[in-house]
Amino acid sequence: MSNIRLAFPFVNGRNGVRRFTSASVKLEKSGDCQNKSVAARPFTCTFTRTMATTNSHEKRSLNYDNLNPNVKIMEYAVRGPIVIRAAQIAKELQQGVKKPFNEVISANIGDCHAMGQVPITFIRQVLSSVLYPPLLDDPKIPDDVKQRSREILKAARGSVGCYTESTGLELIRRHVAEFIEQRDGYPSDWQNILLCGGASDGIKNFLKLFLCNVDGKLPGVMIPIPQYPLYSATLAEMGITQIGYYLDESKNWALNVDELERALEEKKETCIPKCIVVINPGNPTGQVLTKQNIQEIIKFAHNHNLFILADEVYQHNIYAEGSEFFSFKKILMEMGEPYSSMELVSFMSCSKGYMGECGLRGGYAEVINMCPEVKVNYLKSVSAMLCSTVIGQACMDTIVNPPRKGEPSYELYIKERKAVLDSLNMRARMVVDAFNSFEGFSCNPVQGAMYAFPSITLPPKAIEAAKKNNQHPDVFYAFQLLERTGICIVPGSGFGQQPGTFHFRTTILPQPEKLKEMLGKFRAFHLEFVEEYK
Amino acid sequence: MSNIRLAFPFVNGRNGVRRFTSASVKLEKSGDCQNKSVAARPFTCTFTRTMATTNSHEKRSLNYDNLNPNVKIMEYAVRGPIVIRAAQIAKELQQGVKKPFNEVISANIGDCHAMGQVPITFIRQVLSSVLYPPLLDDPKIPDDVKQRSREILKAARGSVGCYTESTGLELIRRHVAEFIEQRDGYPSDWQNILLCGGASDGIKNFLKLFLCNVDGKLPGVMIPIPQYPLYSATLAEMGITQIGYYLDESKNWALNVDELERALEEKKETCIPKCIVVINPGNPTGQVLTKQNIQEIIKFAHNHNLFILADEVYQHNIYAEGSEFFSFKKILMEMGEPYSSMELVSFMSCSKGYMGECGLRGGYAEVINMCPEVKVNYLKSVSAMLCSTVIGQACMDTIVNPPRKGEPSYELYIKERKAVLDSLNMRARMVVDAFNSFEGFSCNPVQGAMYAFPSITLPPKAIEAAKKNNQHPDVFYAFQLLERTGICIVPGSGFGQQPGTFHFRTTILPQPEKLKEMLGKFRAFHLEFVEEYK
Repeated sequence: MSNIRLAFPFVNGRNGVRRFTSASVKLEKSGDCQNKSVAARPFTCTFTRTMATTNSHEKRSLNYDNLNPNVKIMEYAVRGPIVIRAAQIAKELQQGVKKPFNEVISANIGDCHAMGQVPITFIRQVLSSVLYPPLLDDPKIPDDVKQRSREILKAARGSVGCYTESTGLELIRRHVAEFIEQRDGYPSDWQNILLCGGASDGIKNFLKLFLCNVDGKLPGVMIPIPQYPLYSATLAEMGITQIGYYLDESKNWALNVDELERALEEKKETCIPKCIVVINPGNPTGQVLTKQNIQEIIKFAHNHNLFILADEVYQHNIYAEGSEFFSFKKILMEMGEPYSSMELVSFMSCSKGYMGECGLRGGYAEVINMCPEVKVNYLKSVSAMLCSTVIGQACMDTIVNPPRKGEPSYELYIKERKAVLDSLNMRARMVVDAFNSFEGFSCNPVQGAMYAFPSITLPPKAIEAAKKNNQHPDVFYAFQLLERTGICIVPGSGFGQQPGTFHFRTTILPQPEKLKEMLGKFRAFHLEFVEEYK
Repeated sequence: MSNIRLAFPFVNGRNGVRRFTSASVKLEKSGDCQNKSVAARPFTCTFTRTMATTNSHEKRSLNYDNLNPNVKIMEYAVRGPIVIRAAQIAKELQQGVKKPFNEVISANIGDCHAMGQVPITFIRQVLSSVLYPPLLDDPKIPDDVKQRSREILKAARGSVGCYTESTGLELIRRHVAEFIEQRDGYPSDWQNILLCGGASDGIKNFLKLFLCNVDGKLPGVMIPIPQYPLYSATLAEMGITQIGYYLDESKNWALNVDELERALEEKKETCIPKCIVVINPGNPTGQVLTKQNIQEIIKFAHNHNLFILADEVYQHNIYAEGSEFFSFKKILMEMGEPYSSMELVSFMSCSKGYMGECGLRGGYAEVINMCPEVKVNYLKSVSAMLCSTVIGQACMDTIVNPPRKGEPSYELYIKERKAVLDSLNMRARMVVDAFNSFEGFSCNPVQGAMYAFPSITLPPKAIEAAKKNNQHPDVFYAFQLLERTGICIVPGSGFGQQPGTFHFRTTILPQPEKLKEMLGKFRAFHLEFVEEYK
């Protein structure tokens, strides 16, 4: 048995995103995997080899040399080395190891329930009733829950254990279309709705369509920097060129058309730009785009004939006064021709908003103006996976078709929903105010979504110390924070940032008391850190 | 608005699998998609274009010409044109259209609950309790259900709405490993277990690892013919070469090493064979491999240094007297070195067996002897999707950790499980006996899984009529059956078959009374068909 131990130093990777490599790899007996150049190869976790001692293969069929090269280079910082270290620390604490703190605070991932957010009763009652229909006879279950559950069960041919159509249950697709119509004031065709296993699943299945080598050139997809690393990971895995455009931090992370043009110009010789990804409200940056900014983006996309991918999974998470969520669909439609004929896909999820049902894996895509021949093939390509989880689909139904005024679940639903969103609103301010009071921190308002992405000025000595440690400075800072306080954040380099700047992403999800405690610990750490490296 | 209407004729495709193309495509206004060669392009469904009349785009960003070519060519017969036509017929019946039958019988897909199989109470009680924890105080819910649910909730940090680790909850991975140990009598390391969103999801994420161009050669994966078309679809989509090996129908669909050698020899100049897929029990063929046959396959894979992918999702579905399920893992271990060090992945699912929870999307992979560096990258590559559905994971837990003797749910669980498996056993015989009494039918025993795959001799005049109709003869037969009786089966050409032979796949899933009725209608149709074309 042999251990692979990692020290997580970082080296520069592609597209401004850092790669991490193993510093020390010990393989007592590793067959083809024993290799002197192993130390320069990317790793993401520690694990124990089993059966290595009995392995007599000279050369494995699948080895590092013939492993899919795109899998090797892809990165996903939200589940990267700092998070793996945080999990180790949590285990050490459980085992009684003494630390200067007694718990890990996971501020690295938008995992609402894990940070104490309480599920919405109506959602859970519907889902448990469709799973266990004897509950439909339980007098404690409200009538509107029973009615919704019966409708879903009928559409699902009596059991949520049945496969649905690949695109999801027609009933729920129709409810999604009605929800969109009500939200935007423009028609939505249920046949343009695809239910998927969370937005990530939908985004991956969609981006795949672009992979086509035309006269030796690969497609390019524009993504914001900073970005949610699902995009960089997916594009890397597929071998699609990433065209990163910087968000304008000085204008609260707005999109700047000059920067979009610059980014496109830089890459257009080496790829064929096909699509632009916009995340609104922003992840990790927390901005809510203005109508005017969306119009500018649409015009830019039109000028360059780009498919728009609108990641709108945080559409319920709007906090700042004066901020309003406008869907790309609505603005396209408002702008009329030629814009209203543009190709657009919008993604939504059950995982965020007031519901935070990350573990249930529900989401939808609305695709408009897609070339009919492409759409047929798109629908065909999702059919081999049979269908997304029916519980995720049913969860999406409860979100787009919530209790109506006068129904028995209405009051409680409104109360619970408001409590979550009000509290998030309060926490958004709390985080920003605290960070802006830290020396060398600058944090834009969190207008929406669930994250703050402050920029931090690091003392030159800290940058030196990071270099000595073979770490990117923001990674060094984040690891120090974790080891000294138990607070787990994600370094800005995992999302991308302007060269020479340092950031990190933290969620605003710890419950108010915990968040207060976390910010207090953070402040103390930061003072100590600055003092140490000043 | 314009309609695309399809007549589903078939032409020959790659690898013995047929492609279907549109016979009549009408696009009144289709921009770049209007194209004279459109009729030769593959389609899979009918849909209505929206907004076509307002479309002024000359050239869409994503069009048929630059669509991912692998998406264009991939096929998935289980959700192919005959199934789409069956759904149309069902709608027509609902709308009161007169037909010579009053319902569609869906024998095309292994969708147990849709065909009347009743969910296992224990499974559903656990799943509803973890979703709605107030049920843990309900005196009607048995104590063992409550205990299991509390364990899962604790592992999931209090809510199934939390993300889990990308590989699934440690608790459930440990339970899976214990289940495998008990089944095989050999150790299983929980760190080799990955929970996934159904076996399909796991298989896709695994096969992706092989995609690597080595000196201009792509990898090749050996798959049985006939096969479950997830494999051909996934390989086509990824651009991995399919090396089809024929199962030996005359030996009850066993694998023949000479045929494996032949298949490998044929393709080894054009690709690098890396992996062999074996489906046991067989889909669509229903065989249960003998220990000796598995040993031969393992030796063959060892000689050619192939990774073994064992699709063992039907391991609970064993019917024939004398048949026994042996996992590839168990036989590898029994055989000792060098075989016990071979690379192997085995897939399991919640969708089949006695549970049939297709809609919940749960599954697992056990991966042994994988190169450590590959494994690290494999785990990294699944991390960007965050995790599979927690309800699917919890469902897998109920399967690998069912009620134990003496626990309150035990008796009912055993009774329900036995009822399902006994009934499937009976239906397996019923289908085979009926088919073998039809003129020109020959059907191997259904030793396991959920399907029969009879070969049929078609009269020359029927073959001519199919040709005139521009359809493959087995497709012609299946469409005739559907249109005249409402019975939906999948033509053998969707799975692959020896050239010049004709088959189809039917499930054995309709409940006994319905199955009897179906077989009666089938017999009458076949007599009529043979009479008509004799």
